[in-house]
Parts: sequence; structure tokens; C-alpha cells
Amino acid sequence: MQLQVQLEEHSYPIYIEHHALDRIKNYLDPNRKYAIVTDDGLPKKWVDKLQAQLPNAFVICFPHGEANKNLETYQTVMKKLIEHHMSRSDALIALGGGVVGDLGGFVASTYMRGIDFYNIPTTVLSQVDSSVGGKVAVDFDTYKNIIGAFYQPKAVIIDPETLTTLDPRQISNGLVEALKMGLILDERLVQEFEKDTLDLDTIIAASIDLKRQIVQDDEKEQGKRAILNFGHTIGHALESRYFDVPYYHGECIGMGMLFFLNDPALKHRVEAILEKLNIPSIPDYDPEEILSYVKHDKKGKSETINIIEVPKAGSWQMKTITYPEIRQILQGGIHEK
Amino acid sequence: MQLQVQLEEHSYPIYIEHHALDRIKNYLDPNRKYAIVTDDGLPKKWVDKLQAQLPNAFVICFPHGEANKNLETYQTVMKKLIEHHMSRSDALIALGGGVVGDLGGFVASTYMRGIDFYNIPTTVLSQVDSSVGGKVAVDFDTYKNIIGAFYQPKAVIIDPETLTTLDPRQISNGLVEALKMGLILDERLVQEFEKDTLDLDTIIAASIDLKRQIVQDDEKEQGKRAILNFGHTIGHALESRYFDVPYYHGECIGMGMLFFLNDPALKHRVEAILEKLNIPSIPDYDPEEILSYVKHDKKGKSETINIIEVPKAGSWQMKTITYPEIRQILQGGIHEK
Repeated sequence: MQLQVQLEEHSYPIYIEHHALDRIKNYLDPNRKYAIVTDDGLPKKWVDKLQAQLPNAFVICFPHGEANKNLETYQTVMKKLIEHHMSRSDALIALGGGVVGDLGGFVASTYMRGIDFYNIPTTVLSQVDSSVGGKVAVDFDTYKNIIGAFYQPKAVIIDPETLTTLDPRQISNGLVEALKMGLILDERLVQEFEKDTLDLDTIIAASIDLKRQIVQDDEKEQGKRAILNFGHTIGHALESRYFDVPYYHGECIGMGMLFFLNDPALKHRVEAILEKLNIPSIPDYDPEEILSYVKHDKKGKSETINIIEVPKAGSWQMKTITYPEIRQILQGGIHEK
Repeated sequence: MQLQVQLEEHSYPIYIEHHALDRIKNYLDPNRKYAIVTDDGLPKKWVDKLQAQLPNAFVICFPHGEANKNLETYQTVMKKLIEHHMSRSDALIALGGGVVGDLGGFVASTYMRGIDFYNIPTTVLSQVDSSVGGKVAVDFDTYKNIIGAFYQPKAVIIDPETLTTLDPRQISNGLVEALKMGLILDERLVQEFEKDTLDLDTIIAASIDLKRQIVQDDEKEQGKRAILNFGHTIGHALESRYFDVPYYHGECIGMGMLFFLNDPALKHRVEAILEKLNIPSIPDYDPEEILSYVKHDKKGKSETINIIEVPKAGSWQMKTITYPEIRQILQGGIHEK
């Protein structure tokens, strides 16, 4: 199937097809020169498959993990592009998860002031979330994604077959972002998670389609796109605090959403879904410590913070609350509100 | 006076007013939070003047010179923005020459995926050339501007009074780019240079207006904008080779243009103008060595190179030539073609 992201200046297709990676010439010109940017977390078979069909492609592989999504890796990739004499008419393909897409996309957006960028996300998380919307970035100082750009790809190519080599925990990790999308925007997607057998294809396509619409409404995150932060205020603070466990991003977002579901029945439903996905339960945390991480995320800019609440499935409201209110929420925990 | 740059997505004004820096609130909201990025080559009086009128501004000053237009300085500036809790709704002002505008603009384009950018160029070169058109960049590896973006400012504010503290050699340096603009696009601007007394205000405004039109036609340099490279193929190679003299950028562009003026009468006129501007004459060079710098600029990408010729004042033609042809031109020198 094909979804079209319609933006003012840059419109582009998202292809979702099983075995797309076996027929890459259906989606891009096989004779162009490509830098395939990937990391060593991706099974080599996917890289080989792609490279076999692109005679003028070369591979740049960096060590996997968020810790490498930084300006050092960025410079390493840039140097390789220069060594391979990449010109403005050549293109970069990011093949991998969110780190690869974010870093590869940021390289593409700034090499010679921007070259064509194709994104081939290979994890559920990157398929449903980071590959759609043009946000590219690296981490810097102690901040995630603080250096980056809005840079739309020429196309996003999703081959669900890549999920066959993905660790089940990583699948659940990504599904939480899809669940989030359903919770704020469409109850039918939430119901998909309550079926006996999860239909991954349907969930991924529905989730991408919802995200596509949000991005079309607000490409540069000046308003509505902020609703995608549902679950992220506390979730991201937990992720930063417990980086050494580590919890995965989606796992923390799952935990973080539970603080902002006001309807006990809905909260119960979501807890059941998260349990089914084997999302760990919220650890015993120190509210004051988590609050300090929330503040760090906001860079001490303001005395208030915008959060998203989901009053009922498929709906949202934005609220401006104070740090003392966040403290109260953290102190109260998810079951005593 | 005010010129408007009309682009598809981002239109913005260029203000050219004497004493604009004394009345900055006419051009931007004085109460916003600003990072003023500048270098230690600019007399402090201009920074002080600006800061005195902007209560929520702070200054980031880095050592002057092209050698500092790199990712190290970029990271230093980024860290300062973080330390000062800059948010996406704050803005960056670049106050200085081309290096400040290029680096400051690239920081603005990538801090939190882009914050508002005001450019206040204080040299002739940056006023007539680099401040108009949205090209922002840093140097990397051995390449100029290889990392960057197209990022249009909110406004360009030009106060010709800043030229009163500029070294006369720097004024001539910038005027060569204005002369270039006249040679490719409008003979009347060339004639301005032949008057007994140069009218800087007229030359700067006319040159900016011509550049504005080129940028409007081809924002992302996919076609016509390449004519601005007139004089740069050999000029830039000379600049790289003789970096230790050093020759200024405009001086080298002046030298470089002479190779691509086919009409002897016009070449004579241009030589007279360059002499009046005290542009040094072309040093004794080794053609083979200069050729290697030309190739380096092109990153060995192709066997041919596009150059711009000016057959008569106010006109141009683009030609694709080979490296052996460049060698011949270099061997021939400017008077034996």
C-alpha cells in the first residue's frame, strides 16, 4: 500500500509492502549513487539484499545504540561521503531503526546543504514513529535531538519482513507508540491491541496513517504535533533516569502514558494491553528525582509545562501545568489520582 | 530602503539604512531573547550598540577568521545556547562578516531543528553576497561550506555605518563581488565602478537587488544560481593555494574573473577597475598546481566542470569544459587567450 504525505513544499510517498526490499527498483532509481547508512544492530542480510540491487551503492555502518547518535558519528559519516566523492545529485539511504534514520537524515539534510534522503525503517518503532514526519537529529551535550532539522525524505519504504529478524521486545517497544497514536486519535486502533492475535500489518499501517495526518497539519511542530508527546513527559524522564536498566523508549512511554489517563476504565484497558506486550511495570521511583529529569528535558526554560491527557480513547486535551503539579502526579502514582 | 526577498515558503525583508543599528527596534522585537553571535574581529562598539537596545540579549563571541568556521566553533556556540536556556521561540542574531553569518546561520538552522535567525552583516562582502540567499554552512575536512543548509533569515539588516570601521582592503574585497554581479547581470553596475568617486551605497544596494532576483529564481541552486560562481573556479583555487599570503576572497575572485572575460576591451575595463580597488595582480602560479586545487574543489566527481563566461558586460554563458581545457586556460594566462 502507498500513503502520501502532502506537505506545502515536499510531498512524498510512504510505501508499505512485504518484500519491498527484494524489489527496490520499484521505489528508487537503482542506478543512482547511494550511501547506505546503517548500524551493526541490523542483520547483514538486509544490507546485502539492498546492496545487491544497487550497483552504485556503498555502505557506511556505525556501532548501534542511542549513545552513538552524536556529532562524532555524524562527522565519521560525513568523512565517508567525502571520501566516496558524493555530490549534490547523489542520495543517502538510511536502513535501520530510529537512530539510523535520525542520524542518516541529519547527515543528508546538511551534506552540501542537502541531498536526497530515502528512509527504510526496519523496526516497528521507526516504522510507526520516527520515519514519518521529517524530524532528523543527533543528541548533543546531555540533550536528545537538540541538534537537527526538519528534512523530509524523498520516500519512506517499509518492508514488514524486516521485523522477522527483530527481537520481540523491540516489537513491543514500537507497538507502544502505535498504541499511543490510537489513544489520542482513534479508538479503533486501541481495539486492534485487544484482539487475541495482533495484526501487525494493520496496526502499523493505521498508526502511520494517523501520524501522517498530524504531520500534514503541523509539519514544524508549532501546534497540534505536540499531542504526539502524550506519555513522553514522565516517560522520557524515566528513560533518562533508568538508562542503565535499560528500559526501551517505548516501554517508558507506556509507563508515562498511564499517568495521564483520567478514566479508570481506560487506564485498566491500557494496563492490560501493556501487560500483553510485556511492557515492564513502573519501577519504584523517587518523585523528586524524576521531577529533576522532567525539568532537565525542558532546559529550565519555563515554570510550566504542557502535557497531554487522554480523557477517553481517541481523544486528547492539552494542559499547562506547573512543576509542583507534576510532583503531585509523581507522588500520587498511577493508581491514586 | 527595503527590498523584499520573495521565496515560495519564506519571504523576508532586507533593510538598508544608515544608523539602522541605532534604531534596532524598528526591525525586530527588542523584548525577545536573543543570542548575538559575533567574532572578535568586529569593533566592540557595534556589539555594545545592539546589546544596549536588547534587554534580553547575550553575546557569544568567537575568534575571527575562516579557520574558525568549523564544527568546533559550532559546538561551542551550541553549548552557549543550551547554557542560556534558549528555546525554540528565541532567536539568534549574527552580527559580523561572512564567517559569522554562515556559522551563526547554520547554528540557527539546526538548534532545536531551527530557531529564528536575523542577519546583520557588517562587511561589504557579507552585505552584498553571503547575507542574501540563505546559504549557511561551516567548513569541514578540507572543504569549504561542505556542511550546511539553505535557511532563510527572518530579516537582513544592513547599516552602512558599520563600514566606517572596516579596513579599506576589506571594502575592496567585498566590492569585487558587487562588480561580479554587474558583469554577469547589469552593465550599469559596472559603470558605477568607473566613476571618479565610488558611491558605496548605490553599489551595495544595486548588487543586493541583483542577487535577490537570482535567489528568487533559484533558491536551492539547482540551476541559474550557479552563475554567481563567475570567477570562482580559478579564483577559489588561487585562494586555497595562496592561503598563507593571504589573499582575500574577493581579491582572488577578481583574479579569477579575468580568465573568463573573452572581450579584450571588457577585460581591459575590468583590469582598470581592479587596479583602482587595489586588488593585487595575479601571482606567478604553477598551472598544474592550480589545476589540482580546482579538481579538489570538485571533489574528483566528474571529468568536466561548468564555468561561467562573460562575453560582454551584463551577460553570461555557462560552458561545460574539461580539465585539460582548464589547464590550457591556466597555461595561457589572462592575456594570451
